[in-house]
Amino acid sequence: MNIDDMILVSVDDHVVEPPDMFDNHLPAKFKELAPRVKHTDEGADVWYYEGQELPNIGLNAVAGKPPDEYGIEPTTFAEMRDGCYDIHERVRDMDANGVLGSMCFPSFPQFCGQLFSRTDDKTVALAMLQAYNDWHIDEWCGSYPGRFIPLSLPPIWDPGLMAAEVRRVAAKGCRAVTFSENPEKLGWPSFHSPHWDPFWQAVSEEGTVVCLHIGSSSQLTITSVEAPINVMITLQPMNIVQAAADILWSRVMVEFPDVRFALSEGGIGWIPYFLERVDYVDYRHRAWTGQDMPNGMLPSELFRERFITCFIDDAAGIKARHQVGLDHITWECDYPHSDATWPESPEWLAKALDGVPDDEVDAMTHLNALRLFHYDPFSTLDRAACTVGALRAGATGVDTVARPSGRVIQRPTTPIRIIDLAERATARKS
Amino acid sequence: MNIDDMILVSVDDHVVEPPDMFDNHLPAKFKELAPRVKHTDEGADVWYYEGQELPNIGLNAVAGKPPDEYGIEPTTFAEMRDGCYDIHERVRDMDANGVLGSMCFPSFPQFCGQLFSRTDDKTVALAMLQAYNDWHIDEWCGSYPGRFIPLSLPPIWDPGLMAAEVRRVAAKGCRAVTFSENPEKLGWPSFHSPHWDPFWQAVSEEGTVVCLHIGSSSQLTITSVEAPINVMITLQPMNIVQAAADILWSRVMVEFPDVRFALSEGGIGWIPYFLERVDYVDYRHRAWTGQDMPNGMLPSELFRERFITCFIDDAAGIKARHQVGLDHITWECDYPHSDATWPESPEWLAKALDGVPDDEVDAMTHLNALRLFHYDPFSTLDRAACTVGALRAGATGVDTVARPSGRVIQRPTTPIRIIDLAERATARKS
Repeated sequence: MNIDDMILVSVDDHVVEPPDMFDNHLPAKFKELAPRVKHTDEGADVWYYEGQELPNIGLNAVAGKPPDEYGIEPTTFAEMRDGCYDIHERVRDMDANGVLGSMCFPSFPQFCGQLFSRTDDKTVALAMLQAYNDWHIDEWCGSYPGRFIPLSLPPIWDPGLMAAEVRRVAAKGCRAVTFSENPEKLGWPSFHSPHWDPFWQAVSEEGTVVCLHIGSSSQLTITSVEAPINVMITLQPMNIVQAAADILWSRVMVEFPDVRFALSEGGIGWIPYFLERVDYVDYRHRAWTGQDMPNGMLPSELFRERFITCFIDDAAGIKARHQVGLDHITWECDYPHSDATWPESPEWLAKALDGVPDDEVDAMTHLNALRLFHYDPFSTLDRAACTVGALRAGATGVDTVARPSGRVIQRPTTPIRIIDLAERATARKS
Repeated sequence: MNIDDMILVSVDDHVVEPPDMFDNHLPAKFKELAPRVKHTDEGADVWYYEGQELPNIGLNAVAGKPPDEYGIEPTTFAEMRDGCYDIHERVRDMDANGVLGSMCFPSFPQFCGQLFSRTDDKTVALAMLQAYNDWHIDEWCGSYPGRFIPLSLPPIWDPGLMAAEVRRVAAKGCRAVTFSENPEKLGWPSFHSPHWDPFWQAVSEEGTVVCLHIGSSSQLTITSVEAPINVMITLQPMNIVQAAADILWSRVMVEFPDVRFALSEGGIGWIPYFLERVDYVDYRHRAWTGQDMPNGMLPSELFRERFITCFIDDAAGIKARHQVGLDHITWECDYPHSDATWPESPEWLAKALDGVPDDEVDAMTHLNALRLFHYDPFSTLDRAACTVGALRAGATGVDTVARPSGRVIQRPTTPIRIIDLAERATARKS
């Protein structure tokens, strides 16, 4: 397929929330309590909320930076590319990258809105969370109809409220919600508890996709604190296999057949191996572990029916796409994080998709995302204006060249270790 | 390839140690201190050593059992198939399965001989460990020349002793040693510490392969104690990716280029994805993390040079064998554990290898193992007598049919959970 003819929908990007995001979405009585950004003496822009500090981490906003300026230090809005937090610049950056549609995960409230769950007064917590969702849906996504798949935060502290919020935002057209790859690791009941049933019921009825982003259990895979940070960066995406196994063997599969899970930033290359494994476990161990699959399905069939997968640039996974399951593979850009292929996503994709028939390219780049996330850009936009070529042609004047900040960067002489980062974080706080 | 023409070398099987194993290998003054088996009032055969109890777990000796009799309860020698612990019956079982060669991991002393490391008197500890190694090499493997790849235990409490033991057993022809996939999780320094250097030096000089079996960090991947045990069974092999990343980015790669690691029971289907990931991490993060690969190699190239991989029945991995790296793939049977394909390994293999050219089949089924583990069966045995067909033809009278024990088995009505197993274990102890 000609690169310019591709249509790209990214089901995993990230918004760095702008400082004014709560201005228009909170009742007057809560305005004073809203999270706010302050510029610290150390020169970082940090969110403050009820005594909690939430810096913007450099590595989460590296789009347009040269790789030697990556790092986990706190950063400022001024140092970031405007597209990280400014919706108009974001759309221009999407255009320059040929990306039609985008679903954006939160930054400072954490993947499941844990920030708000730590508020003692749950009336305030819910007001903040709903203000966040309203800003996200109406202002961030709403500014450019047809360009975004809205994604809501759940009031994770109360499954009844979660259900109500799923329904409230569904009425506004939002049918995706973030959740944790392992809620037990966050201090809530596991996927094996009936605790979450009201939530599963609501997402089933609304057709809302439950999106589990890597890292949403707030647990990193640490082999050793002495390990180079490259070990952690390598392992982070592969950790999602734990969520896949945990959910596939959970009661959710049996009790709520309409729930659909998206494994956000989970990659796809590991899936053929995983599916062989679960089928083997079923075949070999079923007789004594007491576990049956619903409707006598194979675990692999169940996975392909209930899970939505996605890839950034995953040649092995693309090659094995029929073993993965072609009809649930979606694509992501990961803007503005460090794994993002921006501003050359179409070129990276074209390489990974080399030799794949056009209809299969279309399925993975956008058609699956449209169907699975109930996203209908072509009711708003002319399809011909949505291709890589058309979007890029309209993106005049977007400077995508990575430019050094001018800061002097000392490359470490020995590999940065996980403990070094922990020590730097402690030093900043003291 | 005709099934009967295959030659099979399994680089991961398990020995259930027989009760008399210490009889011929300890100096008289230590004999009284040796581990010994007692039949408990609860009807299990349990190893006792210095106040420690080490039951034989049923799931580790299921060869020849019907799957509804699998379970983690302690078992007895009488309930096991004789081939688990009797060398003569073991070879007959190998013959019946068409398996020429086998490397056997330990059972009751744990994968790295941790049992002995807990002995306060390290003179005694070393005597026990050396007796174990001598029994394994001279008696277990030595009874059938050409049929086994011997594997030693390391005195893991002292890297100097480890080096000496590597050299001592190498002189007797043993050039494989078990080690931990993550020694830090066992309470020792990590792969990133120079602590182990005498050991790396010795294995480098002797050409001894360091074998890391899944589970050798004594850490299971637990998503939740409420999770069905199927979750744990699914995830256990995939955990080895952590060791692969940890070691690939460690100083061992830089300082000891001759060390070779085998990822025992690690499977291969995940490897193409992993190799793409490590190359991407190198490409994208090298500039700021301070980590360079030795000799400017790609991480994937380094992995293919330094790691030996193996599979049981891994169709996705076989399909992607050239991305995995054909020349370091080996095969395993896993007898007598529950993942084993015995007594139909050739049939399972033939299915997974369907369409693979003969020379590639030979590489994966035996030639790679011969080269990488310095195993030379054909200096002892006539090659024509080593094929699946020839071995099976000689295995007259081996009864491989799974027969019920006659015990009444109640299949659980709800899936067995991880916490159920933990509770049963506690109940047994109290």
